[in-house]
Amino acid sequence: MATLTELAAMVEGLVEGDGEITITGINDLERAGPGELAFLADSGRIDKLERCRASALIISQTLVELPPLNEANVALLRVSNPYLAATRIQNFFLAAPFKALGVHPSAVIGENCRIPAEISIAAGVIMGNGVELGARVQLAAGAVIGDNAVLGDDVVIHPNVTLYPHTVIGHRVIIHAGSVIGSDGFGYATDGEGRHHKRSHLGRVRIEDDVEIGANVCIDRGTFGETLIKAGSKIDNLVQVAHNVEIGENSLVVAQVGIAGSTRLGRQVVVGGQTGVAGHLQIGAGVMVAAKSGVHNNQPAGAVIAGIPAIDHKKWRRSIVALARLPEMLRELRDLRRQLTELTAGERSENQAGKETGNE
Amino acid sequence: MATLTELAAMVEGLVEGDGEITITGINDLERAGPGELAFLADSGRIDKLERCRASALIISQTLVELPPLNEANVALLRVSNPYLAATRIQNFFLAAPFKALGVHPSAVIGENCRIPAEISIAAGVIMGNGVELGARVQLAAGAVIGDNAVLGDDVVIHPNVTLYPHTVIGHRVIIHAGSVIGSDGFGYATDGEGRHHKRSHLGRVRIEDDVEIGANVCIDRGTFGETLIKAGSKIDNLVQVAHNVEIGENSLVVAQVGIAGSTRLGRQVVVGGQTGVAGHLQIGAGVMVAAKSGVHNNQPAGAVIAGIPAIDHKKWRRSIVALARLPEMLRELRDLRRQLTELTAGERSENQAGKETGNE
Amino acid sequence: MATLTELAAMVEGLVEGDGEITITGINDLERAGPGELAFLADSGRIDKLERCRASALIISQTLVELPPLNEANVALLRVSNPYLAATRIQNFFLAAPFKALGVHPSAVIGENCRIPAEISIAAGVIMGNGVELGARVQLAAGAVIGDNAVLGDDVVIHPNVTLYPHTVIGHRVIIHAGSVIGSDGFGYATDGEGRHHKRSHLGRVRIEDDVEIGANVCIDRGTFGETLIKAGSKIDNLVQVAHNVEIGENSLVVAQVGIAGSTRLGRQVVVGGQTGVAGHLQIGAGVMVAAKSGVHNNQPAGAVIAGIPAIDHKKWRRSIVALARLPEMLRELRDLRRQLTELTAGERSENQAGKETGNE
Repeated sequence: MATLTELAAMVEGLVEGDGEITITGINDLERAGPGELAFLADSGRIDKLERCRASALIISQTLVELPPLNEANVALLRVSNPYLAATRIQNFFLAAPFKALGVHPSAVIGENCRIPAEISIAAGVIMGNGVELGARVQLAAGAVIGDNAVLGDDVVIHPNVTLYPHTVIGHRVIIHAGSVIGSDGFGYATDGEGRHHKRSHLGRVRIEDDVEIGANVCIDRGTFGETLIKAGSKIDNLVQVAHNVEIGENSLVVAQVGIAGSTRLGRQVVVGGQTGVAGHLQIGAGVMVAAKSGVHNNQPAGAVIAGIPAIDHKKWRRSIVALARLPEMLRELRDLRRQLTELTAGERSENQAGKETGNE
Repeated sequence: MATLTELAAMVEGLVEGDGEITITGINDLERAGPGELAFLADSGRIDKLERCRASALIISQTLVELPPLNEANVALLRVSNPYLAATRIQNFFLAAPFKALGVHPSAVIGENCRIPAEISIAAGVIMGNGVELGARVQLAAGAVIGDNAVLGDDVVIHPNVTLYPHTVIGHRVIIHAGSVIGSDGFGYATDGEGRHHKRSHLGRVRIEDDVEIGANVCIDRGTFGETLIKAGSKIDNLVQVAHNVEIGENSLVVAQVGIAGSTRLGRQVVVGGQTGVAGHLQIGAGVMVAAKSGVHNNQPAGAVIAGIPAIDHKKWRRSIVALARLPEMLRELRDLRRQLTELTAGERSENQAGKETGNE
Repeated sequence: MATLTELAAMVEGLVEGDGEITITGINDLERAGPGELAFLADSGRIDKLERCRASALIISQTLVELPPLNEANVALLRVSNPYLAATRIQNFFLAAPFKALGVHPSAVIGENCRIPAEISIAAGVIMGNGVELGARVQLAAGAVIGDNAVLGDDVVIHPNVTLYPHTVIGHRVIIHAGSVIGSDGFGYATDGEGRHHKRSHLGRVRIEDDVEIGANVCIDRGTFGETLIKAGSKIDNLVQVAHNVEIGENSLVVAQVGIAGSTRLGRQVVVGGQTGVAGHLQIGAGVMVAAKSGVHNNQPAGAVIAGIPAIDHKKWRRSIVALARLPEMLRELRDLRRQLTELTAGERSENQAGKETGNE
């Protein structure tokens, strides 16, 4: 619980109306009720305000017209980024002190592990030898932690996650259920008979601070060296990150993306869902890739691309629009050909006629 | 075991030949032997009938010519939908009474759970607090059931499945191995420095009756409210269903599809494999999306679409055919340009000649 | 440890320089130090040789110019395929005798299983009844082995893998974490009300010798009969293999590929990442499919294809190049039309003028 004025201070916002009202929680526009704070992330939903029953509303500094609400005496909290402010306030309401549940008796812990006092290791966790856990780590049921893995403080590992040996994980990392970190890369040398000889994978995966990884993600270890997910990056469900890939700080990788071996993404790259990125590429900082693209080439910082193979997204859009007109273009081409042929034939017969006339 | 006449009654079929023969099981056309029933799902495989050794055959009411079989005295079971009839008869043969194996001593069960007498909880199952299980639920090895999950009657959870807390599952639902139900959605608010602040996910996943979910599927919980899979829908392996998605009754979602946040599919929608559907869309009832499509726009009921971005599938097909002819079109364009230039030049020189003549 | 001459004998290579030096291991070009062997897989990285600190270098027989290295007295091991030689030598260095760790007390083993003396069954493994394990099998933590599964010698099953009942696995097979082998296929018969009736899946998955399967892969069992992965094939992470698919010997299936039901791949097929292959197709031996393709048709042996739908990759490339020029083609078409119209109009007016003249 907090007063609206207290919440405003957290998010550098300005209160319009009664700042002393007590707010008990945050909810979305349709569900918020008395005592709750709602938020209007984009002005496109402004028509829904009339039915809003919240006691207060986070809105943009720049939004001017709100007649029905003001009549109803709903307090306003004006901020520069309503979505961000709502997220911060929600996180304030939900913040709960860590509860150390200790080590469940059914968990199996290897030798020479470092396990702090403040810890929660659930039933069915299997931990190898030489594992080092930070403070307040939570390992959920069925998680398997390989030998010599190192986890920072406040890491949350959800159920049935597998960390292969030697995986290194920073602070405040979250890994959702079923993800596999550190499996061998897809690397083979093929002999003259077409047989594929497995290359040993000796590297590891390193995940820096504040990374979140979705469910059923696969991140392969380096062949030599590391596969590296840098600080603050977020990876959605069912993503494939191959051996020796590097993902820059604060990047976003949406669901079902695949990134092939040794490719490096700069900081704040955004990769849309189901996109594939080929191996050994350099993707510059801030590059944005549209969903379902296939990236075959290096990309300069700030490029915005789409398509298979991915090109500048504006060019891609024009090509796609033209593609829909292709059958019509085909007809037009045939028609032009026919007319031109007639025209040429007419001219030839005229010339012929002229020559014949000249022969007279 | 049943007589052919008894089986015919189950599927509203008509027997031709000896209805009193005893059928011991059903098998496919190549594998069926004496005593077994085979089925011809489509007339395209009619050439395989000659080698069929089955005692009886399910075929379409409308199929007339079957000379080799009739000579061999194979009984026929004529139905309107052979594939459906074969499925029903097979399910009859395989139906087995539920065997309650009880709770394996290695399973870990939380507090305040409701566990009926008729139950099978396998080794290594980890169940949280406040879980409610229906009658005849089967939880396979390594399944993790989060706090306060609710499962209906006759639910089958395969190995290493993870249900996050508060997941609600109807009757007769099947979830295959490795699937993750209820993980957090991919939602962040980004601040001025490019850091992504995690939005708390407070919603849940609700799965209605008779849904089947494949292996290694991910279904994220709602941010607020629910992610909802309605009755009778079937989801194939490795599918991604984002937060607050709704999938209508009896829909089919083929392998590796991804559906982005808050999109709603109507009833009996079919989404082909590896398709991506963008967020916040309305996909009408009965829409069919071809495999590998990218759906960027709302779709009216009954639309049949394909492509990236997805358009009417007939238009897409014409565009694709034309696309293959693009290089040829380029050449034709250049040729037309050349001829037109020659023609114009000829005309200009003629005009020029006329002027010169006129100047004489 | 081995001398360079000994290693040369293993890989049919020729030593240039001191063959008696002792090699302690192999590493990549940037990381290799004194005593270590590095390798130059392709001549594109030849500029990195100057900074190489390795004692010896595997290079191609055909590579001639290496001035900086020869001055530094680095010994050379010349072979026909450096990548293959490096892989074999690395595997020699890493080869370790199998360590039988026995059966962990927390593992749950069913009845009537065949478990050899030389075995490693980790904590938290759950094994059904009637399972048969070969010699030196390793089952990692949390693996679930269904009833009557059969595993050959030297099989490695990583954590949280699920093998459904009756799965058959050959010798030296590796399956990475989270993969699901033998789940039910996506097969339903739909009735007149649009309800989907589940087809029972009675078949199994059979995996031959020397197959490696990545993480979070799904391979469905046959409806009847088998889904078959033939000897020496390698499957990357997050791949979907549907019921009754057959993958030929020594094929490579890259990450996130989906292969629909009953399709057969010949030997040494290579399927690029995120490709989809439709059902009931025959893909000939040695076919290569580019990443992100959609294969809709049968393919003759040796075909090299790309695109959605996949066509000859050279044709696809030409179409893609032309596609980028489509907006320009549209403009050109309009321009041609305009000029042709002017020309025709001019001619008409001339003809008109001529007629008028003729009327004089």
